[in-house]
Formats: sequence, structure tokens, C-alpha cells
Amino acid sequence: MPSISRKGVSMPESPIRKLVPFAEAAKKRGVNVIHLNIGQPDIKTPKVALDAVRNHDIDVLAYSMTEGSEQYRQKIAEYYAKNDIQVTSKDLIVTTGGSEALYFAMGTIMDAEDEIIIPEPFYANYNGFATASGVKVVPIVSTIDNNFALPPIADFEKLITPKTKAILICNPGNPTGYLYSKEEIQQLAKLVKKHNLFLIADEVYREFTYEGREHYSILQESGLEEHAIVVDSVSKRYSMCGARIGCLVSKNKDVIQTALKFAQARLSPPTFAQIASEAALETPPSYFDEVKKEYVSRRDILVSELKKLDDVKVAVPQGAFYCVVELPVKDADDFAQWLLEKFDANGNTVMVAPASGFYATKGMGKNQIRIAYVLEKELLVEAVQILGKGLTLYASR
Amino acid sequence: MPSISRKGVSMPESPIRKLVPFAEAAKKRGVNVIHLNIGQPDIKTPKVALDAVRNHDIDVLAYSMTEGSEQYRQKIAEYYAKNDIQVTSKDLIVTTGGSEALYFAMGTIMDAEDEIIIPEPFYANYNGFATASGVKVVPIVSTIDNNFALPPIADFEKLITPKTKAILICNPGNPTGYLYSKEEIQQLAKLVKKHNLFLIADEVYREFTYEGREHYSILQESGLEEHAIVVDSVSKRYSMCGARIGCLVSKNKDVIQTALKFAQARLSPPTFAQIASEAALETPPSYFDEVKKEYVSRRDILVSELKKLDDVKVAVPQGAFYCVVELPVKDADDFAQWLLEKFDANGNTVMVAPASGFYATKGMGKNQIRIAYVLEKELLVEAVQILGKGLTLYASR
Repeated sequence: MPSISRKGVSMPESPIRKLVPFAEAAKKRGVNVIHLNIGQPDIKTPKVALDAVRNHDIDVLAYSMTEGSEQYRQKIAEYYAKNDIQVTSKDLIVTTGGSEALYFAMGTIMDAEDEIIIPEPFYANYNGFATASGVKVVPIVSTIDNNFALPPIADFEKLITPKTKAILICNPGNPTGYLYSKEEIQQLAKLVKKHNLFLIADEVYREFTYEGREHYSILQESGLEEHAIVVDSVSKRYSMCGARIGCLVSKNKDVIQTALKFAQARLSPPTFAQIASEAALETPPSYFDEVKKEYVSRRDILVSELKKLDDVKVAVPQGAFYCVVELPVKDADDFAQWLLEKFDANGNTVMVAPASGFYATKGMGKNQIRIAYVLEKELLVEAVQILGKGLTLYASR
Repeated sequence: MPSISRKGVSMPESPIRKLVPFAEAAKKRGVNVIHLNIGQPDIKTPKVALDAVRNHDIDVLAYSMTEGSEQYRQKIAEYYAKNDIQVTSKDLIVTTGGSEALYFAMGTIMDAEDEIIIPEPFYANYNGFATASGVKVVPIVSTIDNNFALPPIADFEKLITPKTKAILICNPGNPTGYLYSKEEIQQLAKLVKKHNLFLIADEVYREFTYEGREHYSILQESGLEEHAIVVDSVSKRYSMCGARIGCLVSKNKDVIQTALKFAQARLSPPTFAQIASEAALETPPSYFDEVKKEYVSRRDILVSELKKLDDVKVAVPQGAFYCVVELPVKDADDFAQWLLEKFDANGNTVMVAPASGFYATKGMGKNQIRIAYVLEKELLVEAVQILGKGLTLYASR
């Protein structure tokens, strides 16, 4: 039997996926599982987007342009202009989700064995794309004690080698919920210019910032044009994760020209999803006002409920819709599995994402979990109460 | 300015793409360009597929399952059963186009520097995916003189090294139109078993075989279960290239399990496209009968018109909807550009794909082009007449 690749062997499994069989078994036993583990919002997709697809007049579902239609790209540029980001349709490529934008970015700027520095905890799939590209992730630790703020620049400098090609941030962060300040972005800008690196920012949660905080994009930082690459997506913005539309944005012409060659190999992004995504841009700003209000109140209730639990530490999110929670357990992987396998409170339990999967450093985050607050408030309150009961029972085993 | 990757530099450009600016300039001059260059069928997408999307009742466009919904995968398995291919829903992963299936296959079985043997001429994007994966394409020459039949097995054996991991075929072939016989597939099966290699077959044109010829899938060959990986797609089958849905099929459990990890990193295939693709499976067989009849008559008229031209050689296609044509020119790249830049016949010209982009061996196919017969017969006749006039004028420059 021929063997699979070394790369294939070392591809990480999704940190949530390995819990899925336990969740399924719990459901089979009649236990109700409340999902705090996945960033799938329950928010309705804007009707204008869904209707555009309902009303399509296609009779031959042909390839679209490799880089996305000129019309859609121009509208994306207008969207950026409204967010004080000055780019043209030539500075961006429409991708199949933010995932593909990240894959194109890595392929465009990195060869096998090259290094990318990422503050951890970070979105687990960064590991997958790095492994698939043969690239080495160099983690830099950020800590729950200061809400996962940017690590000191001196710590970054210690990690830079001749193989370092880029720094990757997620802003606001999944799983941290941390929003980098303008000053932090400017420190990073100075650093990447000094060492001639790329700065990739995953800004898919751009709109989700709370208490009037403003998102500062790396594309707004002047002098960073040749270094900045933004990964973007409609998935969370318009609660349309299933569309699979994102984009790669850079004012560096070599980057766009090279990424376009990767895009050519896969021909084009999905047509129906582009129709939905283009229409979604007509969503009125009031939609976000309401969505943000909803997320803030969910966050507030989640954090205040969590703080009622003994020996639990929470990083208060300033954006996105995740938070990292430190629990009085030694091994959150084991605890998360136990919640599904051995526990229920009046027929209910919760599924959480163990945070270890969001760290590259072995052993880090072992007592942390990620909670996505994409559920209604009543359900969040109930879920935290169940979590609390679980913690008590788990400790007394 | 930070530099892009070596991989990015060596990513091939689409062989057609570089002609696009010349085609656009021709159109601006008022010249009508007939496109023989691209495999975008003019055949209508089955109404049942387009209507399924029109009638969607989604209100939250959520992630689908990473491997595609259980229901859709079961229906795909039924589709294969109807084609005498015995697989279950567990043996396949729904992908974003055949392109992604190929990318997953390469990542699953090959590391950087590994080798894959591919009969040339081959679908140009194989080069792109190989380059993106750091894999080395080892071409084996097939020739127009025998319609691009399988090269002798002894020639394959000469190319096998310890780094060889797989042989990749496209059956029926793009750009060759050649349909491998059962005997040829069995020769390949014996070879890959002997050398413990994978055999990847791109079978996206499975239905498009002519004169009653039967397609023999590598999944039908018993004893090949651990070696066979099929790349498939709805794009050409149902004339829905813009959907971007394909699948990866293998009875090798390690392959599917590993490919699933690559799939997890990109979360899920596009939802609307899955709705269309699932509905498309209800297309009655009469659809293919009609489509095949149309393609056969297009092929016949194309070949007979081409044979009227002096010093032109044609490989008669037995499947798919492409053919490779040898022209009395030294440099078909130059000729193709000249047709767009310097020539018109009563305000008309043709755009063809130079075949050099379908070869990995430098200098091969320099006097060949690929024609896609995805246009109506009258237009094909006109196009060949224009091509003939172009050849005469080009020779007399």
C-alpha cells in the first residue's frame, strides 16, 4: 500500500472535530448539547443577499472571472472606502472564503521551511494552512492576564531569523477577542519595515468592535503599502459562512500578480456565492448597529455569568465574538470530553473548544477553553450554569 | 520591499491568460473574436439545478459539513453505482471544484520534491497545483500520431525513481480528447501496483465518450482500491462550471482521512453550489444523450473542416470536447497572438489556446493548438474558415 505524505501525517486535526463523536453519542443518549464551540452565528443572513440568489437569471452557470467580477470588486473597493481604507479593484482578488485568501497569501510569499510569526493563541486553521504549505509557524505568547494584548516588540525581534517572512495577526482576534490598538499596529508596522517582512492581517471581524472602539486596519497605515496583506471574508460580517467568499487585499502589485497565478489554477470563485456577497454589500449600516448591540449584550451577560464561577478567569473581548476562559482544571481537553461523555445536568450539557488547539507551543493553554457567544442570551446563561455544575462535579470525581 | 516566494515566481501563468489583453484590444478595434480557447460549454445548465437554488429556504447561510452533507454524498454514491462504480458516502469528500480535489490529492500523498508522472500534453493547471505543492511534474510524451494513446509502459518505468509517488491521467483527456481503453487502464494498474504508487485519474469528462465507447474508471479495476484516487467535478457534466463543486474519491481510508484534514482547514464547500449540484443529479439520462449527440456532431464538423486545411493534422477526439491540432507554423504562441493582434477576416478572428502550455517539456507542442468545441456548429465552421485564412496570410507575411 503506498504511503501518504509526511505533510499529510502532520496536518493537524480540527481541535473541535475530535470531540464530535462524543457530542453525537451524547445526543444519541438523549442529552441536549449546547454548542459554545463553533463560530457559526445564529444571526440571520441579510435578506437582500438571500433574495439576490433566489432571483438569479442564470441559464448557463459559467466560470466567473478568476479574480472575481470587475463589478463586485469595485463594490468591495467602495466598501473599503466607507471604512477609510483606500484601495481599488486592482488591489484585490475575490477568494473562496478567507481560508483561500490565507492559502494564496502563504503561497505567494513563503516557500517550504520559511517561518511566520503568529501571536498565540491563534485561529487553529492557521496551523493547517502552514502545514499544507510546508511553512513553519513560530508562535509568540500573548497572555490572558492582559487580555491577550500585543506581546512586546522585543519578544518578536528575538524570534526573527533569516527565514522569517511574515507576521500574521487576527484583528480583532479569534479566539482572543482582543482588538489591537492603532499604536500596536504602528509598532508592528515599524517592525516589519525594519526587518523587511510582510504583515498579514486577518480582519474578517472588522465590524465587530465594542464600546465605540475603532478598528485600525493595516491598510490604513501609510508607508506599509508594500508590506500589508489583508485576508477578508463575508462569512461573519453578514452571517453567511456557507457562501465561501472572501478576498485578498494588498497594494503590493507583486503580491496581487503572484496570488492571481494561484487563483488561476483553481479557475474561479463560486458564482452563486458572489451574487449573494455582492448583494450583501447593500445591507444598511443599521444591520451592524443591531448585530453589535446584540453581541455586546451577549458578551456582557456571558462574562458576568462566568465571573460568578469560582477560580475562572475571563479575557474580556473587545471585538469578534469569542472569549478565552481559564478554568480550574488541569486538562481542558479531558474536561471537554468528560462534559460530553460522562456528564449532564437535567439532560443538558455544553460543548466547548479546548484552547490547546489554538496554541502552537506544546502544553500552552491546557487549562483554557474558547467560548463563541453566537447564541441567544438565555441560552448563554443556561450554558454557563451547566458549565459551572460540570466544573464542580468534575473537581469532586 | 519584501520579496515573494520562489514558488510564487515559478507558478505558471494560464496559457490563455497572456492572450487576453490582445483579445480585448481586438474587440476594442471592433473585431469579433470567436473563442475556441476555453472549455466553457454553451450548453444550458439543467433547469432542475438552477431552480433548486431559486427555491432555497435558507435564512442563516451556515457552514455545511466539511466533507459535504451526508445526503449529498449518498446521492453521489448512487450516481457512481449507476456508472458501475461501487463506492459509499464514506469514500468521498465534496470539494470546491475538481481543482480542490486535485490539490487535496497532491497534498495527501506528496511532499515537496516528490515526483508525479503525467502523460503530456496535459491540463495546464496540473502544473499550477504541482508548483503550489512543491511537487515535480515528470512528463511522459504521448503523440498526435496515435491520437495521444497511452505511452508504452516501458517508457513509464524508465521515469520511475524513489521519489515517484503517483501517476496522473485525465480520462477522457483535456486537451487530447483521448479515451483510455480498459486494457490501457489495466496496464497502468499493474504498473502502480508493481511500484507501489498512487494512480490519480481526473474523470470529470466521464459521460463525454463517443460512438458508444465505454468509459472505464480506475475505481472499477479490482485490486486497485488502495492505489486509486479519482478527481471529479460537476462543472462539465452539467455545464455548471461556476458552481465550483467536485469530489475526491478513494477506497483508501488513509487517503480520505488525510484529505479530510486538508478539507477541515478550509471549513466547507460552498452551500448554494451544493444545493445546485445535488439537484443536478436528478437530470434525466436523456439530457446526456442529447448533449453527447450535439458534441459528436460538433466534433465531426470541426474535424472535417480542419482536414480541408493544408498541412493541418488533427487528433480525432473520442471523448471530452477538446482536440489538439498541429498547424504548419513554427510557433503557435506567436500565431495565436498574431491572429488577435494583426489579423481579421471581414472583421472576424479566432482565439485559440497554444498547446505549449499543455506540455511540461520545453519546446514540445510549439506547432500545436487546442480547440474546445463548445460552440454551435455554424460558428465552428466559420471559425475554421477564419483560421484557414489566417494560416494562409500568416505564411505569406
